[in-house]
Amino acid sequence: MGRVTERRKVIRIRDGAVSTRPDTLVAEEPLEIRLNGKPLAITMRTPGDDFALAAGFLVSEGVLGETGDLQNIVYCAGATVDGSNTYNVVDVKTAPGVAIPDITLERNVYTTSSCGLCGKASLDAVRTTARWPIADTPPVRVDPELLASLPDRLRAAQRVFDRTGGLHAAALFSEDGELLDVREDVGRHNAVDKLVGRALQNGGLPLSRAILLVSGRASFELAQKAVMAGIPVLAAVSAPSSLAVDLAAETGLTLVGFLRGNSMNVYAGEHRLALRSAAQA
Amino acid sequence: MGRVTERRKVIRIRDGAVSTRPDTLVAEEPLEIRLNGKPLAITMRTPGDDFALAAGFLVSEGVLGETGDLQNIVYCAGATVDGSNTYNVVDVKTAPGVAIPDITLERNVYTTSSCGLCGKASLDAVRTTARWPIADTPPVRVDPELLASLPDRLRAAQRVFDRTGGLHAAALFSEDGELLDVREDVGRHNAVDKLVGRALQNGGLPLSRAILLVSGRASFELAQKAVMAGIPVLAAVSAPSSLAVDLAAETGLTLVGFLRGNSMNVYAGEHRLALRSAAQA
Repeated sequence: MGRVTERRKVIRIRDGAVSTRPDTLVAEEPLEIRLNGKPLAITMRTPGDDFALAAGFLVSEGVLGETGDLQNIVYCAGATVDGSNTYNVVDVKTAPGVAIPDITLERNVYTTSSCGLCGKASLDAVRTTARWPIADTPPVRVDPELLASLPDRLRAAQRVFDRTGGLHAAALFSEDGELLDVREDVGRHNAVDKLVGRALQNGGLPLSRAILLVSGRASFELAQKAVMAGIPVLAAVSAPSSLAVDLAAETGLTLVGFLRGNSMNVYAGEHRLALRSAAQA
Repeated sequence: MGRVTERRKVIRIRDGAVSTRPDTLVAEEPLEIRLNGKPLAITMRTPGDDFALAAGFLVSEGVLGETGDLQNIVYCAGATVDGSNTYNVVDVKTAPGVAIPDITLERNVYTTSSCGLCGKASLDAVRTTARWPIADTPPVRVDPELLASLPDRLRAAQRVFDRTGGLHAAALFSEDGELLDVREDVGRHNAVDKLVGRALQNGGLPLSRAILLVSGRASFELAQKAVMAGIPVLAAVSAPSSLAVDLAAETGLTLVGFLRGNSMNVYAGEHRLALRSAAQA
């Protein structure tokens, strides 16, 4: 546990000068997530917060919606030939009566044999499986200036990135800009799963007053995770994809991209941004 | 087809000033890859080069190794209720006699029920399934200065990134620095699959004299794809993960990270770098 970083020897070349020194790398290991004993998914992740990762993954997949849906999570013993524990296999047990939807082995797969496969099907599936439709009543109202201040605060809260340069980060902020939680991982989706899973464990779902900030781009997968956790605002430092924007527009998610310095692009759900200067313009 | 970008309305906020304009987004759509008619995997990708993506994916999975292993690739007709073609489902038919390894539905899953799940198992699986062990005889020899010039050339060759800011890129260069091919995608792994698949289709595997450059970080998955295609040098603009470095060290792959300006870190396979200044130092 806690193998968040590992040390390796590295040869540095700077303007032709060669030196050798130890370097800190972000750790990457596979994690197998089992649901009631049955293998469900494997993700390459940075070790740590594994139970939260598994719980958050299952929120995204529509299996878990609230704390009571979860009975317990354990590391599987005997996951190796010699019976030792690799701490890379977790088993999530659902509470009695929790219905298990028909989820496939592949992450983010929303298709049925009858409807073919298209972006529209992916959008429909998220909409129909969402346990927590975005229900921020009254709507969360965010000042663009506050939003613009969040990336610097995320960066300041990233502990491992400074040492490795190799981690994605995701953070939850309150509508007043208070940092609620931050997670780092080799995979952005894992960092978000860890945030959402921690919220589930703490009885904090739906996250109906929270802002989710991610360090990179906003893919369909990340927008999906926000929607499944009931998060009303997703902000990304880089570009969104077309399908992420479509999902945001369909579900009422506020999607902000290219959040850099004092500028940003709002792709959907602009009613949650206090655009006072629009009235002045 | 060709839906590499899509247009959406966006609200721009710059220092408090609000304006509305059309924006170009990178397209993201699901692609289902079938193997001899059987669904195998789904990936969220940028449409285009879908046959190459499917072929390259199957090289990474150890199914395809050379052009003759491939019989044909088609878009599945009738993949929707009304029988129209979504162009999001491809079926790869292998040539008679091609053995299909036991691959799971999940990408990058290398585990057996008997051995548990750990980084070591992932490394072993790549080593044992590699159709093209790195066999650059004599070893590719790269000047660090040449290597340092490649990221700028990759950026110059990225057509869609300039418009969307939302694409990862991967490129193949010859050992002399000639740009052989470049692909862009919302997913880095897809961009690499497209490069490798194109090489397979053109009879170019193994890529035993090529340098693979990726725009972001070097994960285990990308190192695996390089190894499976017989590529001797993987260079990344950002950080590698611990497992990527371990895989490189085990397989003889040269792994370069933080390739920026005139500096870089060499994590494995340094014998392929012409470190002349080391001798002078």
